[in-house]
Amino acid sequence: MGKTTLKKITYHEIMNMEKQERVHFVNSLGGFKSVGLIGTQNSNSQTNLAIVDSIIHIGSNPPLFGMIFRPGVVARHTLENILETGFYTINHIAEKIYKKAHQTSARYDRNCSEFEKTGLTSEYKNNFFAPFVNESNVQLAMEFKEKILLSINNTVLIIGEVKDVYFPENCLQKDGFLDIEKAETITCSGLDSYHKTIQISRLSYAKPDKIITLLI
Amino acid sequence: MGKTTLKKITYHEIMNMEKQERVHFVNSLGGFKSVGLIGTQNSNSQTNLAIVDSIIHIGSNPPLFGMIFRPGVVARHTLENILETGFYTINHIAEKIYKKAHQTSARYDRNCSEFEKTGLTSEYKNNFFAPFVNESNVQLAMEFKEKILLSINNTVLIIGEVKDVYFPENCLQKDGFLDIEKAETITCSGLDSYHKTIQISRLSYAKPDKIITLLI
Repeated sequence: MGKTTLKKITYHEIMNMEKQERVHFVNSLGGFKSVGLIGTQNSNSQTNLAIVDSIIHIGSNPPLFGMIFRPGVVARHTLENILETGFYTINHIAEKIYKKAHQTSARYDRNCSEFEKTGLTSEYKNNFFAPFVNESNVQLAMEFKEKILLSINNTVLIIGEVKDVYFPENCLQKDGFLDIEKAETITCSGLDSYHKTIQISRLSYAKPDKIITLLI
Repeated sequence: MGKTTLKKITYHEIMNMEKQERVHFVNSLGGFKSVGLIGTQNSNSQTNLAIVDSIIHIGSNPPLFGMIFRPGVVARHTLENILETGFYTINHIAEKIYKKAHQTSARYDRNCSEFEKTGLTSEYKNNFFAPFVNESNVQLAMEFKEKILLSINNTVLIIGEVKDVYFPENCLQKDGFLDIEKAETITCSGLDSYHKTIQISRLSYAKPDKIITLLI
């Protein structure tokens, strides 16, 4: 695409949008998202599965990830289960299960399991409390660590620590990089757009004295 | 990929990794990331540009995005400028500028501008204080709103509000969805792997009574 004049939309125009238009628009603005399926169960063994598109790396030592929950959202049962039991799983989404993953966002009753409703398979292993998604190629066992209220808009940041990681062995590179594209992980944009990826390349560690001979 | 036995790595194995291996590994686990170039200047008109791969949607009404800063990281000048001046820009990265974008992560001195060092072009418009990246197709003007210390690992969550958005007009769909793939936005994985995307599809709003005839 040649550089053309860009259209401008202001804060006030965003605030004046119809609600669904605003949600679609603003959700598109941050770039492609880290999306996964969050597996939980409550103390009565009622399982829950929710698609969450706000997974964020908080740190590596110890390994921590966060995610955002909005008040009153579909994923509220998931949030309740995490706070009640202290455990959850993060499961990457491959193209072969993206429709089922998306379907978990429907407002099912509390006594419905999205595993049953969508046909995804719950999997328990190594005595971890929360269920994994068997069809997922990359699975994280997570322990709840901290809940932080973001009072600016009453959302909640949930931070958890990685306890175990399951992945296809041939996707792990020697330097520790896990090739999630090879593991078929997809990404999403906005509320409902799903995307495969094509690796452009990995770049070496950037140093300040590098001679800039970069193509534009 | 057929479902094969997954390799397991535990928390203790992660903690026992060599530092760079752990950083590569853990950064790969959350999925593809929202990555952008953060443009700032300080009160002496010293500009700064930093690649940040932890952009997260916090809310749509009002439009809020967050990002994580680690203590002592390369992007510390960017964080200082945001806190000092209250303004910054988020600029999407297209394939044509991904090498220059990555190069902004080098540890340049405070009095160096990553715009000059990488050959990316700073752009000022509509009296907004912080510089945009001219070569970026999707640009957000952001106002700093809140700094939240995540004491669990001494990282900082910076939350800002979208004031203006610039984008190619032909990428905006009627329902408000902005087609960032059409705008050439790329994503990243781990510390240094850059990826283009191929849209699989957009899915309709999920309803609980949908008959599940989903392909596995």
